[in-house]
Amino acid sequence: MKQYKILLVIADGLGDRPVTKLNGLTPLEAANKPAITDLLKSSIVGLMDPISPGVIAGSDTSHLSIFGLDPHIYYRGRGAFEALGAGATLNHGDVAFRGNFATVNDDFVVIDRRAGRKLEEGDDLVKELNEKIKEIDGVKVKFYKGTEHRVAVVLSGKGISDKISDTDPHFEGNKVLESRPLEDTVEAKRTAEIVNLLTRKIYDVLNSSDINKKRIERGEKPANIVLMRGAANYVKLPQFSSYTKLKAAAVSATALIKGICRELGMNVVTPPGATGGIDTDYNAKANAAIELLKENDFVFLHIKATDAASHDGLIEEKVKAIERIDKVIGSIVDKIGRDNLIIMFTGDHATPVEIKEHTGDPVPVLLYIPYPVVNDIVKDFNEKEVRKGSLRIRGLDVINILLNYSNRAEKYGA
Amino acid sequence: MKQYKILLVIADGLGDRPVTKLNGLTPLEAANKPAITDLLKSSIVGLMDPISPGVIAGSDTSHLSIFGLDPHIYYRGRGAFEALGAGATLNHGDVAFRGNFATVNDDFVVIDRRAGRKLEEGDDLVKELNEKIKEIDGVKVKFYKGTEHRVAVVLSGKGISDKISDTDPHFEGNKVLESRPLEDTVEAKRTAEIVNLLTRKIYDVLNSSDINKKRIERGEKPANIVLMRGAANYVKLPQFSSYTKLKAAAVSATALIKGICRELGMNVVTPPGATGGIDTDYNAKANAAIELLKENDFVFLHIKATDAASHDGLIEEKVKAIERIDKVIGSIVDKIGRDNLIIMFTGDHATPVEIKEHTGDPVPVLLYIPYPVVNDIVKDFNEKEVRKGSLRIRGLDVINILLNYSNRAEKYGA
Repeated sequence: MKQYKILLVIADGLGDRPVTKLNGLTPLEAANKPAITDLLKSSIVGLMDPISPGVIAGSDTSHLSIFGLDPHIYYRGRGAFEALGAGATLNHGDVAFRGNFATVNDDFVVIDRRAGRKLEEGDDLVKELNEKIKEIDGVKVKFYKGTEHRVAVVLSGKGISDKISDTDPHFEGNKVLESRPLEDTVEAKRTAEIVNLLTRKIYDVLNSSDINKKRIERGEKPANIVLMRGAANYVKLPQFSSYTKLKAAAVSATALIKGICRELGMNVVTPPGATGGIDTDYNAKANAAIELLKENDFVFLHIKATDAASHDGLIEEKVKAIERIDKVIGSIVDKIGRDNLIIMFTGDHATPVEIKEHTGDPVPVLLYIPYPVVNDIVKDFNEKEVRKGSLRIRGLDVINILLNYSNRAEKYGA
Repeated sequence: MKQYKILLVIADGLGDRPVTKLNGLTPLEAANKPAITDLLKSSIVGLMDPISPGVIAGSDTSHLSIFGLDPHIYYRGRGAFEALGAGATLNHGDVAFRGNFATVNDDFVVIDRRAGRKLEEGDDLVKELNEKIKEIDGVKVKFYKGTEHRVAVVLSGKGISDKISDTDPHFEGNKVLESRPLEDTVEAKRTAEIVNLLTRKIYDVLNSSDINKKRIERGEKPANIVLMRGAANYVKLPQFSSYTKLKAAAVSATALIKGICRELGMNVVTPPGATGGIDTDYNAKANAAIELLKENDFVFLHIKATDAASHDGLIEEKVKAIERIDKVIGSIVDKIGRDNLIIMFTGDHATPVEIKEHTGDPVPVLLYIPYPVVNDIVKDFNEKEVRKGSLRIRGLDVINILLNYSNRAEKYGA
């Protein structure tokens, strides 16, 4: 049997609810999407719960699940994945945090959780931190620059634990929190102490940095603290190729997603112009996917723009992002040939654009299959029409379904 | 509440895809099935994933699942079930293999993996093997005749393991493989060695057997080797009656299915004329089911013909088999009375007749309930129409559903 290439397109935060300004249509319903509609002639569709019904998935837990790894087993908090996305090399037992460069006053009250968000000097600040803070109490400390104001912090050494609370108070006007042990162990107590010492040391370095002096001179807020959250012990993930037998590649510009894909052993490509935002270069991503499909069995294309627009409440931008994704899918189909691949298009979770946050609603899913199966008959691919389809799946089912319809699955039993 | 009898009819490999020669209809859609259509007046219908979406089920894993036992826990490879089906009595720890009588040349290159397939002298060859090979290195060896060219091999003794590779090269023109240990244990290494010694000994016995000399004289290929695969440690299964409280019986002519049913403690009946092929005696099977329904709460009727036709690509035969199953169901309903039983009709997996192999597509499922429930309104029972139904279940859900609608389920909680 012919083995088909597999294209998995995930529009981050795709799922939505009826939007008042769209006259009750969802963004997916409102979007003009000729390429996707054309695929419906030979597709099965339905709804997917990324984790399980009602669970509000994060992008990390959802992607793990969609890649076939139960997040209840493999997810250890976002810090580790964020650090991997920022380029960290982690070893088993390391404890990683997500961090924000932020602005505090002399009393450690948070004035701006993102130090103005578009932080231009992030690379230099990270460099200075790495030069001046190398270890605390025998535990190695390493900083990695993320996107914008984000920074990952990694602790390496013996006798440390991820069972500690955040220093990030999550609201401006509140004081930086003391990290506390979340379990009664020597390791958790020690790690909380190290994090509190580290936080003070970071402030000392950053507050006296020339970079921040210049920011103040220019009337900008100093990036004089790193707020830490999501402590996570690093646990090595299984290799995607080992449990799927697929040669796999990913196109993404989002640190978190890139980190997961790299950990799974995928070849991760971020073409120039891909930003992980609504200003991303869609053509560059389409072309990268087309190139990768030549050499790989499985190509995963991640587009963050839908989620970014949703979090910012930008209705028209979300509709536009979907229309651009439609063009991306169309151009890939044109280049690779509609008879040579199966295509799944879905979201990793719902981010209703009027809610601006993730919700636990199921997300629409489409699977284009180039040969005759019993298709689902629907007029359009959107949250409402797909309810007439046959798929009612969970994220963990995705890989099995892709392997089956690409004729790459092995029989379980005899 | 009245407790209803339960009839579960499984047409092996029932699920299919649109078939070109049937003008895009599936065999189930093309078949004339007045009895089943009549049941639709009081039925719920839908799709079932025997294991989970996309997983290509074998008949063994699927039946375990449908009988309420998670194959991820209870399935240990086909060898054990095949041996049980062939009449073996297994003890905990025994290692069983599926085997083929095959033809090899002097260099152990496989000339015919099935020694002509229709092997008439199978019983005599098995008898000769059991007389001449009783043990190897203190481990007892026993052979059991399966259908056609099939033979089960069982090793009994201490210090053996099923973590060894097959001797069956799976392709003609290849040499018989040396069995290798699949894990670094004394038991696996020893068992692999025993299997390799056994293979050589089997060749010596069979190649010099008078039976094979006569085959060669008649211009037939000698059945001079047994190719072994699917080593499986025998693990005792729970008794069906203990976890369902049902007195259960099965009608089947297929060794693998009979083995599973017997292991579950069902009363297994193979009426004369039932063959496990497309030439089976449908009336005999219907009559056996009717008799068993008088004395049992639950009767399982397995018909292999649909799968046999599918594997051989016989479209019309598959349609005919479904039409005969319809008559079987009709005659059972006539005899037992439509008010006295609930009936589930489904497949254990899809074997699309144009593909000739199992696929991971969901299979249609119908549950006839003689009293008013909220029915599904569909015109026909086939892969397309059932998508309008309410069932979207997994194999593991079947027993609970049958217990519920037969008024035999116990409340979980209070």
